[in-house]
This record gives sequence, C-alpha cells and structure tokens, in this order.
Amino acid sequence: MDLISMLSDRIIAVNQALESALDIGEHDKLREAIRHIPMAGGKRLRPVLAMLTADSISECGDKVIPFGVSLELIHNFTLLHDDVMDKDSLRRGVETVHVLFDEATAINAGDVLFARAFETLSTTDVSDAVIRDLVREVAGAVRNIGEGQQLDKDFEQRTDITEEDYLKMIEYKTARLFQIASKGGAMIAQGTQEQVNAMSEYGKLLGMGFQIWDDFLDLKADESLLGKPVGSDIKNGKRTLMVVHALARLEGQERDTFFGVLGNQNASSDDVQGAIALMDKVGSTTYAEQMALGFAKRSKELLEILPESEHKEILKKITDYMVQREK
Amino acid sequence: MDLISMLSDRIIAVNQALESALDIGEHDKLREAIRHIPMAGGKRLRPVLAMLTADSISECGDKVIPFGVSLELIHNFTLLHDDVMDKDSLRRGVETVHVLFDEATAINAGDVLFARAFETLSTTDVSDAVIRDLVREVAGAVRNIGEGQQLDKDFEQRTDITEEDYLKMIEYKTARLFQIASKGGAMIAQGTQEQVNAMSEYGKLLGMGFQIWDDFLDLKADESLLGKPVGSDIKNGKRTLMVVHALARLEGQERDTFFGVLGNQNASSDDVQGAIALMDKVGSTTYAEQMALGFAKRSKELLEILPESEHKEILKKITDYMVQREK
Repeated sequence: MDLISMLSDRIIAVNQALESALDIGEHDKLREAIRHIPMAGGKRLRPVLAMLTADSISECGDKVIPFGVSLELIHNFTLLHDDVMDKDSLRRGVETVHVLFDEATAINAGDVLFARAFETLSTTDVSDAVIRDLVREVAGAVRNIGEGQQLDKDFEQRTDITEEDYLKMIEYKTARLFQIASKGGAMIAQGTQEQVNAMSEYGKLLGMGFQIWDDFLDLKADESLLGKPVGSDIKNGKRTLMVVHALARLEGQERDTFFGVLGNQNASSDDVQGAIALMDKVGSTTYAEQMALGFAKRSKELLEILPESEHKEILKKITDYMVQREK
Repeated sequence: MDLISMLSDRIIAVNQALESALDIGEHDKLREAIRHIPMAGGKRLRPVLAMLTADSISECGDKVIPFGVSLELIHNFTLLHDDVMDKDSLRRGVETVHVLFDEATAINAGDVLFARAFETLSTTDVSDAVIRDLVREVAGAVRNIGEGQQLDKDFEQRTDITEEDYLKMIEYKTARLFQIASKGGAMIAQGTQEQVNAMSEYGKLLGMGFQIWDDFLDLKADESLLGKPVGSDIKNGKRTLMVVHALARLEGQERDTFFGVLGNQNASSDDVQGAIALMDKVGSTTYAEQMALGFAKRSKELLEILPESEHKEILKKITDYMVQREK
C-alpha cells in the first residue's frame, strides 16, 4: 500500500472540512477567489501531519481536523500573497488569483483566508486553555512566516547570502508552519511536555528538508508534475540553497553567465538549463539533495519519543516522502 | 474639560501597550514598516471604546487593553493593505508603506500586524472561554472587513450603487470593527447578554455614522488636518453616500461633468471642487451629514442599558465626537 492510499481517509476528511470552511460569504467573486487555489490541489501535508501526530499520541486525529484546516487556510493565504509579491502567474497548474482577477482581490482574498483560519481554529473541540495556547502559537508562526518572506524578498537583491542566512529564512518562511502542525497535534492530543517539544522540533526539521527539496524540484522536476515552469525560482532571483552554494563557487565567465540568468525574467529555458548545468557542475544540486535528506533523517530520529503504532510508521513514511516526492 | 483630555490616560495606556506590541522582530525594514502607520498618529478610537464600555459595566477598562490593542493592530493592517489596493500615497500626513518601501513590504507588514493582533489578543487577562469567543468574533469581523473592502473596490467600477448597497459595504468594512470593540469590551467586563447585545448594536451604528462622517470630511475638511488631499475619494472613484446620492440626482451636462472627475486621478483640485459644488447643489453633502448625525443619535440611545457613571457620560461625548470631529 503506498503512502497516498494510507493517507486517503485523512485527506478526504480534511478536504471535506476545508470545503465547508470555504463555503462562506455572499460576494461571488471573493468566494471564487478564496476557493481558487485551495481547491486547485495541494497535498494537505500540514493537516495530515497534525492528525497523525495526534493519532500517534492518543488516537484523536479526528479532533485535530479544524486546527489542521486552519493551517491549510494559512498556507493558502500565504500562497496568494506570495504570488502577488513575486508576480507569479501559475500555481498548482492554474492561473494565480491576481492574474485571474486582480491584485486587490488577491490581497483581499488572502486576508479573508487568514481570518477564516482563526475562526476555524476557534471551533476545535479541545479545552479553552489549549485554544488560547494554539492561537498564540499559530499567530506567532504566521508572524515568523512574514519575517521569512521579507528575508526571501530582500535576498533577491543581494549576492552575499550565506547558508546560515538561507537556513534561517526557510526556518521562518516554511518550517514554522510544519512545526506548529506537529506541535499543535501533540498539544491537542495532550502529549507530555517532552512529546510536545520533540514533535515541535520534528516538524521544524521536516519543514527545512521539505523546503530544500522543494527548491531542488523547482530545478529538477518534470514540468507537467510541477504545475509551473521549471527554474522559475532562478528567473525570480530566489536565493535557494543551490544558488547560495553556487555563488560561493562559480568564478569568471561562468559566474557572469550565471548572473545573466539569475533574476532575469526574460531568460529563455535554454538559459535556465545552462544555469542549472553550472550548479550541477559545482555540486550545488547534489549538495542540496544531501542536505534535504539529512534534515529528514534527523527529524525521523525524533519520532522515537512516540509509542509504536501504525500511525508512527506512517509518519516515518511521510518524512521520507517529503524529500523523495516528485512534485 | 474637553473629550481628548478626558481620554488622555486611556490613550497613553493604549499607546504604551501598542508600542510594546510593535517592538518585535529582528528584521529592521519590516520592524520599521509595521510601526510606520501605527506610530504616525491615529485616535485609538477602537481600543478606547472597548475600555470605556468595560469601565461602564464593571470598571475593568485596564483589563481590556490587550484586546483593544489587537483591534488597533487590525485597523492598521487594513490601512496598509487598503493603501496598496487604492494606490494611495499619503496617510496620516506621512507616505504610505508601499511608497516608503515597496508593495511587497506593505503586504507583508500588513500580514505581520494581523498575526500580531491575535498574539496580543491571546494575552488578554480574561477566562479562556472568553478568549475563544473573542477569537471567533474578531476573526469573523476581519472576514467581514475583507468582504466590505471587496464591495468598495467593486463599486468603483459601477454606476448603479444604491444607498442600501453603500450601507451594507460600510457596515462590513468599517462598522464591524467598532461593533466588536464595544461588544468585546462588554464581554470582557462580563456584562449581561442584554448589555452585550446592546453594546454590539451601539458599536455598529456608531461605526456607520463614523464612516459617513469620514467620507464627508474627505470633501469638507481642512486639508492640513486631514493628512491627505481633499477629495481623494472622488479621484479614486469611491462610491460614498454623497456620490451615490448625487448620481441618482444629477442629469445632463452636470452629470457628465461629475463623471469627468469621478475616478479621474488626473483631475485638478478645481475639478474636484467643481464636483463637490455639484454634490452640494443637489443636497448630497447635507444629506450625508444628516444621516451621520442620525446614526449617532440612534447609537446613543442604546447606551441607556448601561448604569449611570462618568464612563457612560464619556461614551456619550465620544458618540457625538464621531460625527462632529474635524479630522
């Protein structure tokens, strides 16, 4: 049985709750705008991670669904706003909201998704004290996501980004939401403080590996699976781990060629492939692949705090999947 | 003693808590971006309203401060995003965030203010059960604000807006946050259900009057007090009550002249004054003024549910102020 089949019941439950959370508002265009990206696909990794964590601790994954949906809403709100900031026109194989409608609608729809996340979170069937803690944690995570996004945008204009800078940026921008997913799942399941702490760290490391792999896929995935053009990060000038690694190693003519493509929206796909070949040559793509695998390995070790169960086995498989997936 | 002097202790307390809520993050530009508009002024009406309501019910205004600050943060987040959507370049007499930095930073800073609002709300010294209710109410209000903003933007492209459409738009976009301010204050003060309901309605009606007066000021205020050019709503094509009223009455050449200015960013200040004169001529400005006063009057009647106190007297004065203020 493959991983997706193992997760299908949970994904179906999350999708139903998500669909219902999005069935709001009287304004037709805004309704369509908030549903567009969430309904265009998505793996629901954050809710599923939260549910599996809760199941591993006290078999209460179903109770986690509203919390998990709130994370999915937050994830999608950040996608809408990021697409405006990055002026990206494709996401999950469909037009982005600001292209389909306009920028104002995309900003506004993102805000509504964000608000809806906290409404949904507040309905989670857990004690009021846990709700207060979750609100603080989730809001803090979103604040960090904003800080990470700001770093990501700033980095586009800089050539002196270190690996440490990059890792901090993805910890904030991406890993924080995975972190609160598994941490929140453990909190709702009333895990011990040690379990909550371990699952928090687990989610963080997993999220780091996920993002590095995501950047890797942007260069190496099959375009039809990716849902957007290969190498769009390069044309957007994103300082991925591979770019940071390559910039520290490329010299002379090769460095000039690389800079001619990085951040150049008019670069051809041959130009992009040339830049990728340069990153391959200096070992940047392999380096990133290995680092993603390393984060996944370290995160998996933290699962040892959980009792043995089929849920824990699925968590291990998800951990591997994060850095092996093809899209 | 004038109203501002009566409120000064509360405003100082709110400003201290707000300053502290904004003292976050390691990213210098983002720190500056989130502080820029909140620190450039603002009357802190929403926090003060929440505090006065709580004081009127059980003398616990201080307890309301974090909740009040969360509303102020939300108000400011919506200002940042609205300025991007409307491409406005001045606010409170200073450059807007997207002009001072860039659009991405303004969107991002708005998101961070939004997140910070829920972090701050979660620290309010009130029972966990009330926190859950407040989170749901505040998040629902923000969702409505997004719907109201969407209506406002859509209306700019339409000439068939009715007074009913306009009132619904401002109920969502503006009145909802005043409504949750006084309602939340009553909830935190453990008012009776009747008091909570009456204060909810009070805030809503007050907010309606506030917005109509705000639109009136955009045409009639002293520009140096307003902090932005007089008539910017006209140049932005905003369908204010006065515009809706005038469009239903202007005919022939006058109607054509009016349409030549409405939504025309290149209109001169003489053009704008000409359009205002047309609205005066068909009675639109007087009509709006009277309607603002009517909302304030109806809202004030709802204060009768509160016990007699100096706080209640200040609430009455605030209610009058909302539709008499010069900026």
